[in-house]
Amino acid sequence: MYRKRFDEMNCAAAQALEQIGDWWTLLLVREAFYGTTTFSGFFERLGIAKNVLTERLKRLVELGIIRREQSKPGVERYTYHLTDKGRDLLPLLVTLMQWGDKWVFNENREPIRILDNVHQRPIRKVLVTAADGRPLGISDLRFRPGPGADKRTLERFAEAKRRRVALKD
Amino acid sequence: MYRKRFDEMNCAAAQALEQIGDWWTLLLVREAFYGTTTFSGFFERLGIAKNVLTERLKRLVELGIIRREQSKPGVERYTYHLTDKGRDLLPLLVTLMQWGDKWVFNENREPIRILDNVHQRPIRKVLVTAADGRPLGISDLRFRPGPGADKRTLERFAEAKRRRVALKD
Repeated sequence: MYRKRFDEMNCAAAQALEQIGDWWTLLLVREAFYGTTTFSGFFERLGIAKNVLTERLKRLVELGIIRREQSKPGVERYTYHLTDKGRDLLPLLVTLMQWGDKWVFNENREPIRILDNVHQRPIRKVLVTAADGRPLGISDLRFRPGPGADKRTLERFAEAKRRRVALKD
Repeated sequence: MYRKRFDEMNCAAAQALEQIGDWWTLLLVREAFYGTTTFSGFFERLGIAKNVLTERLKRLVELGIIRREQSKPGVERYTYHLTDKGRDLLPLLVTLMQWGDKWVFNENREPIRILDNVHQRPIRKVLVTAADGRPLGISDLRFRPGPGADKRTLERFAEAKRRRVALKD
């Protein structure tokens, strides 16, 4: 039997969760998307304990998701900003909000609406799409070993093929 | 100061995380998308402790993300299947995998490739888009109180307007 740590799993979802799969981490990123840049801003708006906030900000900086900037030379004050890696979490955060809107709050009970700045209209539901833009469901997808597949992943696909039990086909 | 539990937060992302913001939970959903339906299948393929698996499956059934079906009448064997609520996590999971592929594994090191079944071509990167399909970044978005905004959310928007500090504008 395998007893793997998430950061040893040959799976992008597991590895992504290893970096951001903590509630406070993603809510900090949400706050950063809302425009919060200061320690006190995160502290006041999230209602997070200071030691937890300090630790999570430090981790996000280490992971390269947030970068810390000194406000003025010589002054021990900092602001926090999303990096490209952090900004690339936008689709994940929006998808998370849309799922929560639909399945937890239900229609017309959403706490926050996300509009497109130009037309002031609600954005579209995030979808999985083909290269040509067609929306895809799970039955339209095929999983295949990628260039970074390790021995276990390859065995997994071989097992699926042999037993026709998993990976859908 | 607020010290809120996530399930008390007036935020769809926080509420969504309350239901699925646990590593094993999302990896169980991933396994279900791969086609796994049995307790032994989840156990073998995830390398999860049996007591943790039992508890997470129970919670996913309670939340209506997975439903449990008796394999045969009178026999104590069950299979597990994603509900509509569970299947609607597909965009989240794909987005998570794509982020992990890009920022953890890096290009051309992806463990798994997701293809569109019809053309056998890699699917498109999941994007946030406007109603008319234009791709949107964070600077193209505007957050507004929704119909389910509570007092604190409304105050938050009022503060942002007054101090021009957060929610981007």
